[in-house]
Amino acid sequence: MIIVLRPLSTEEQIGHIVAHIENLGLKAHLSRGEHRTIIGVIGDEEVLRNAPLAAVPGVEQVLPILKPFKLASREFHPQDTVVKVGQVLIGGGSLGMIAGPCAIESYEVLDEIAKSVRAAGANILRGGAFKPRTSPYSFQGLGERGLQILREVGDKHGMPVVTEIMDPRQVDLVNRYADMVQIGARNMQNFDLLKEVGQIRKPVLLKRGMSATVKDLLMSAEYVLSGGNTQVVVCERGVRSFEDSTRNMLDMSAVPNVKGMSHLPIIVDPSHATGRPDLIPAMARASVAAGADGVHIEVHSCPEKALSDGAQALLPSQYMAVMADMRRLAEVVGKTIS
Amino acid sequence: MIIVLRPLSTEEQIGHIVAHIENLGLKAHLSRGEHRTIIGVIGDEEVLRNAPLAAVPGVEQVLPILKPFKLASREFHPQDTVVKVGQVLIGGGSLGMIAGPCAIESYEVLDEIAKSVRAAGANILRGGAFKPRTSPYSFQGLGERGLQILREVGDKHGMPVVTEIMDPRQVDLVNRYADMVQIGARNMQNFDLLKEVGQIRKPVLLKRGMSATVKDLLMSAEYVLSGGNTQVVVCERGVRSFEDSTRNMLDMSAVPNVKGMSHLPIIVDPSHATGRPDLIPAMARASVAAGADGVHIEVHSCPEKALSDGAQALLPSQYMAVMADMRRLAEVVGKTIS
Amino acid sequence: MIIVLRPLSTEEQIGHIVAHIENLGLKAHLSRGEHRTIIGVIGDEEVLRNAPLAAVPGVEQVLPILKPFKLASREFHPQDTVVKVGQVLIGGGSLGMIAGPCAIESYEVLDEIAKSVRAAGANILRGGAFKPRTSPYSFQGLGERGLQILREVGDKHGMPVVTEIMDPRQVDLVNRYADMVQIGARNMQNFDLLKEVGQIRKPVLLKRGMSATVKDLLMSAEYVLSGGNTQVVVCERGVRSFEDSTRNMLDMSAVPNVKGMSHLPIIVDPSHATGRPDLIPAMARASVAAGADGVHIEVHSCPEKALSDGAQALLPSQYMAVMADMRRLAEVVGKTIS
Amino acid sequence: MIIVLRPLSTEEQIGHIVAHIENLGLKAHLSRGEHRTIIGVIGDEEVLRNAPLAAVPGVEQVLPILKPFKLASREFHPQDTVVKVGQVLIGGGSLGMIAGPCAIESYEVLDEIAKSVRAAGANILRGGAFKPRTSPYSFQGLGERGLQILREVGDKHGMPVVTEIMDPRQVDLVNRYADMVQIGARNMQNFDLLKEVGQIRKPVLLKRGMSATVKDLLMSAEYVLSGGNTQVVVCERGVRSFEDSTRNMLDMSAVPNVKGMSHLPIIVDPSHATGRPDLIPAMARASVAAGADGVHIEVHSCPEKALSDGAQALLPSQYMAVMADMRRLAEVVGKTIS
Repeated sequence: MIIVLRPLSTEEQIGHIVAHIENLGLKAHLSRGEHRTIIGVIGDEEVLRNAPLAAVPGVEQVLPILKPFKLASREFHPQDTVVKVGQVLIGGGSLGMIAGPCAIESYEVLDEIAKSVRAAGANILRGGAFKPRTSPYSFQGLGERGLQILREVGDKHGMPVVTEIMDPRQVDLVNRYADMVQIGARNMQNFDLLKEVGQIRKPVLLKRGMSATVKDLLMSAEYVLSGGNTQVVVCERGVRSFEDSTRNMLDMSAVPNVKGMSHLPIIVDPSHATGRPDLIPAMARASVAAGADGVHIEVHSCPEKALSDGAQALLPSQYMAVMADMRRLAEVVGKTIS
Repeated sequence: MIIVLRPLSTEEQIGHIVAHIENLGLKAHLSRGEHRTIIGVIGDEEVLRNAPLAAVPGVEQVLPILKPFKLASREFHPQDTVVKVGQVLIGGGSLGMIAGPCAIESYEVLDEIAKSVRAAGANILRGGAFKPRTSPYSFQGLGERGLQILREVGDKHGMPVVTEIMDPRQVDLVNRYADMVQIGARNMQNFDLLKEVGQIRKPVLLKRGMSATVKDLLMSAEYVLSGGNTQVVVCERGVRSFEDSTRNMLDMSAVPNVKGMSHLPIIVDPSHATGRPDLIPAMARASVAAGADGVHIEVHSCPEKALSDGAQALLPSQYMAVMADMRRLAEVVGKTIS
Repeated sequence: MIIVLRPLSTEEQIGHIVAHIENLGLKAHLSRGEHRTIIGVIGDEEVLRNAPLAAVPGVEQVLPILKPFKLASREFHPQDTVVKVGQVLIGGGSLGMIAGPCAIESYEVLDEIAKSVRAAGANILRGGAFKPRTSPYSFQGLGERGLQILREVGDKHGMPVVTEIMDPRQVDLVNRYADMVQIGARNMQNFDLLKEVGQIRKPVLLKRGMSATVKDLLMSAEYVLSGGNTQVVVCERGVRSFEDSTRNMLDMSAVPNVKGMSHLPIIVDPSHATGRPDLIPAMARASVAAGADGVHIEVHSCPEKALSDGAQALLPSQYMAVMADMRRLAEVVGKTIS
Repeated sequence: MIIVLRPLSTEEQIGHIVAHIENLGLKAHLSRGEHRTIIGVIGDEEVLRNAPLAAVPGVEQVLPILKPFKLASREFHPQDTVVKVGQVLIGGGSLGMIAGPCAIESYEVLDEIAKSVRAAGANILRGGAFKPRTSPYSFQGLGERGLQILREVGDKHGMPVVTEIMDPRQVDLVNRYADMVQIGARNMQNFDLLKEVGQIRKPVLLKRGMSATVKDLLMSAEYVLSGGNTQVVVCERGVRSFEDSTRNMLDMSAVPNVKGMSHLPIIVDPSHATGRPDLIPAMARASVAAGADGVHIEVHSCPEKALSDGAQALLPSQYMAVMADMRRLAEVVGKTIS
C-alpha cells in the first residue's frame, strides 16, 4: 500500500502518520519527492486494507497495490480450476454448454426444450423456479414445483441442472434438487446469500452484477470460496451502459481478464448481455474464440408464449446452428464439449 | 403499448399479431405508414407488460406507454406522502436529517457521535449493525449487540434510529430495535427482502442501486408498497460511472425527477455518493436547494479509527457547519427541520 | 413517429397538436386508449425529426420509429459495401489487417515495424503523424515529415497506409500522402471535419466515440456518405465505462449490431479498447469470430521506447502469433486476408 | 510516479528498470515489500509522464502521483480566477447568468428572447450560429448572418454575447463578433481548435465532454491556458449514463470538485444536462447552492417553433421564476449577479 501526502505536509503530520502505521504493526518507508512525500507501507495486507488511512490528516491518496482477493487469485492457485457439474466438466479445456428456458413453465414445455437442446449438443439444462422480476406483478416462478420438474426433466434427458437461488432461506431446498446453484446478477453482492452457498458443496454459477467491475466479481467469488466451497464458475452477462440498442453491454474482455487474474472458469451469457436473438450467435462464437469455458443461452420452443424474457430466447433450430459453430470453434481453440 | 412492425411485414404476419393481441383480451388499432405499420394496443396494462410480444415474428419494437409502477406513481396518489419516523416527519415540507457513523463500533463511540449530531440539529440517528462489505475479510458489523447499542443511544438522545437490513431472516430482529429499516444499494433488487419489509409496518429507507435507473428505483419501492407498507423514503446515493475522482456519481436530477413521477419522499446521501468529505457540504446544500426531503450524512468523531468507511465521514465540527447551511437553505425553500 | 399525450389532455390541446402536425404537411392518426391518447404521425421523416413536437403543450413523449440515418442503412443498400484501400479489400469476406505503431517516430523505426507486420500478414500499415494527446505537453507527432515517412515505408513494403486527420485544414495535405484517412474517436462528432472528408474520394476509417452509441456512430458515417464519399469503414474501439482494469470497454456486440443496421464494413481495434497487450490476442480472435471485417492492432518493435502509447503495443513476435490465429479463424468463418 | 513490479521480478529486471529510469535523468527509490517491490520515481514530471514505463518487462502498474495539469491547477494559482465577459464578471463571488435560444433563427425572435431574459436578470446572451447536429439533414445554423444578429441584439440590450465555435477556420470570424467563445461538449478534445482559441484574447466557455472526467476537462482547459489565453470558464453540462429518463446525467459534484483542483470558474448548464424543462429550475437552484459561478439556460419564446432543441427550452415566464430563485440563493451563498 502506498500513501501519498498532500503538498506542504508538516513534519508533525508525517510523524503522526508514521506512528499510526507502526501502531498497526506495519512498516513505513518514506520517499521525499520534489512535490510530494510518499510512504510505502509494508506488512499484512488485511490489516492495511481495513485501516482508514485516507482519513488521517495530511493524506491525499491511498493506493492499494495487491489485489483484494486471495483464494480466487491465480497467484494463490496457478492451475485452472475445473468444476464438475454432474458428470460435465467446465474449465481446463472443457466447455459447459448451458441451455434452457428463462423460467420453468410446465413439464411439457421444459421437456420439449430439453429434448431439443440435448440433441443440439447442450450438456447442462437451465430453468428458473424462483425468478427475480423488476415488477411485483410479473410471473415470479413456480417455486418448488418448478424444481421438481427441472429435476425430472434433467434426469430424463441425462443432463445435470442449474437453477437460480435468490434467498438464503431457499438454500436447502434448491440444494436438494439442483446440480449447480446460480447466483443472479442482482444478487452478486447479496453477501448473506453468498455466505450460505459457501457452506454447501454444489458448484455455484456466479453472475456478474450489472455495475460490478471484474474485481468486484472476483471479490464475490472470494465470499463463496472463503466459506469452503471451491466450485465456482463466474459468468459475464453484460453490464449497464449508455448504449440503448442492446439490453446490456457484453464486456467480452472480461474473459481473458478474469483468466489472467483468477484460476476460476468463466462462461458467457449472450442472451442477457444483448437481449437480442439476432446478436446471440455472433456473441457465442466470439466467447469461445476469446477463451470462455462455456456459453449460457436461453432457448424456448415458443418464445411468443414464454412467461418470462421470451423475446430474448433462441428457437431450438437457431440453437442447433449455434452449437454447430461452437463445435467448429472448440476445435480451433483446442477445447472439447463433453 | 405500441407495436412497430418490421418493413415488408406480410398480411399474414399482421393477422397473426392482431389475433395474438385479441386472444389476450386486448384491442389492436392499426396505423399503416409509408415505411412501417404500427399497432396501438389498448387494454389492461399488466396483461400487456407480461405478454412477450417482441418475440412474435414481424415485430420490430414494442414501446410501452405507461410507467411500469402504479402505487408509487403520482398519478395514483397526487399528494406528497409524509413518512413518520418516531416523531420525525420526512416529506411534505419537513426535512429528515439523518446522521451517524457507518458502522456501530461501541456504546461509547456511538454515544459521543450521537450527542454531537443531535446538538448540531440532526433528527434521526443512523448506524450499521450488519455491514455489506465487498471483502469477506472486512469487519462485518456487531450484529444484535450493535442493534441494542443503537436503540439505547437513540433513546438516550431522543432520536429515532435507522439501520440496514441485508437478509430476510433478520427482519423480525431488526424490526424489534429500529424505527426505520434501510435497504442498501446492493440489495435494491433483492426482491425477497423487499417482500419481507413490505410485510412490516415500519418506515423503509430504500437506497438506489448503483446501476438502477430512477424507474428501477420506483419499481423496487412498488414491491414494498404492494406488500402493504406505505411508508417508503427513497434515497439517491450516487450511481456507477466512468468518473474516477469520486466514489460514485451523484445524480442530483433524480430529486425533481422522482418528485415528478412519484409521491414518495426522496433524500440524498452525499457521503456514499461522493466518498469525499471535501465535497459533502456543497452536495448537502445542493440537495436541499433541489427539493430533497432530507440529507443522510456519515459522521464520525475519529474517522481515522473508524472500522468502516472512515475516510468518507465528516467530523462533528464539519457536520455542525453543514447543519447551519441546511437551516438557512430550508428557510429559502420554505421547509422546516423538526 | 408516435406522439403520446399526457393523461387528461383537453380536446383543445389535442386539436392544437393535430393542427400543428397538419401544418407541417403530415397526417395525424389518433388512438384513444384507456389511460392515454396516442397520435401516429405519417409523412416525410425529415420534416418530422426536426419538428420540436415534444415542446407542444399536452405532449408527454415523442417516439421516433425510423432510424435517423438513411445512406448508411442496410434498408437503403442491402448488399455489403466493400471498401478498397490501395489493392486491399475490407468487407464482403475480405479482412483488413491494419497494424503499425501509434505514432511515426522515424524512418528507421517505422521501417523495422512495417517489415515485421508485413511478414506476419498485415495488409495495411498505420502510423500517426498528427496525434490527439490529452496533454499539451506530450509529443504531438511529426506532422508532414511523418506523412512522408509513412508513404515511403508503405511503398517500400507494398502496403497501403492509413493515418489520422484531426483538423479540416489538414485534409488536402493528408489526402496527398495517405490511402485511407482515419477520424479518431475524439473527432467522431467533429462535424466540420466529417464534412471535409465527405468531399474527398479516399476511404475513411471512422472510429467510434468514447460515449457514442452505435446509432451515433452510423449518424457520423452518414455525414461522410452524404458528402458523396461512399468508402467508409467504421471501427469499434471501446467505450467509456466504470470498469477500471481496462482502458475502455470493448463493445463486441457492436459488430453484429452494425452489420444488422448497416451495409458498411466494421473492424475492431482491441489495442485502444483494452489498453492491455495481454488481452489483445483474445479480443482479436473474438472480433473475427463475431464477424468483424478486420482488426486494427498497434505494434511496436520497442514499446518501452515508443513516444506514444507504447504500453499498449504488441511486440512483432506477439503480432506474428495473433496473425496465425487470425488465419485459422478466417477459415472457420469463411473469410480471406488478401 | 510509482512503479509496482510484478511478483517474482528478477534482479535483472529490477536493474533494467532502474537503469531505464536513470537514463531519463530521474531518480529511482526502491521499497521491497513482502509481496511486491515498488519503485518511487522522482524528477521532472513531464519526462515521466511521457516515458512508457508500463511497457518495460517486469512492470505491473505505473501510478501517477501528480495531477497532469499545471496552469489550470489551484496549486499553481491559489486565488480564484475572475473572468470578464464584456463588463460582466464570472467567478470570485459574481454569477454569470447566461440565457438565450439554442440556435439564432432571426433578428425578431432573438430580439424578443433577449428582451425577456434581460428583464428577468440574465447578464450574458447566448445563441448558436454554427450548430453541431448529429444529423447532416438537420438545421446547421445561420453562420455569419447569425453572428451579426447576435452582435446587434446583444448591443441593443446591453448584453455581452457568447456563441459556439466548431472549426479552427472560424476563429477569426467568431472573434470579430463575440465577447466569449464557446467550445461545445463534442469538441472538448478537438485539440487543434483548443490551440486556436488559446491564441485569441477573448474568454472561452469550455463545456465538459459527454464522457470526459473532471481531469480530462481540466486538461482541455490546460490546452487553452498554455496558448496564453487565461480567460477560461468551464461548464458542467451532464455526461452520458445508463439513466434513460434524462438526456444526460448532471454531475453536480463536479462543481466543488473543480473548485478544489482548479482556480477556474465553473458554471452549470441544466438545459443540456437534463433535456427536460421540468427539471431545470431545481437544477439551477442546486447549482448555485453547490457553489457554481453561474448558470447557462436555454430560453425560447416559442419552443414549439424552435429550429433546434426547442423541447428543452424554458419559456420566458419560466426563466423569470428561475431568476427570482437565483437572486434569493445568491444572497444565501454570499454572491452577486452583476
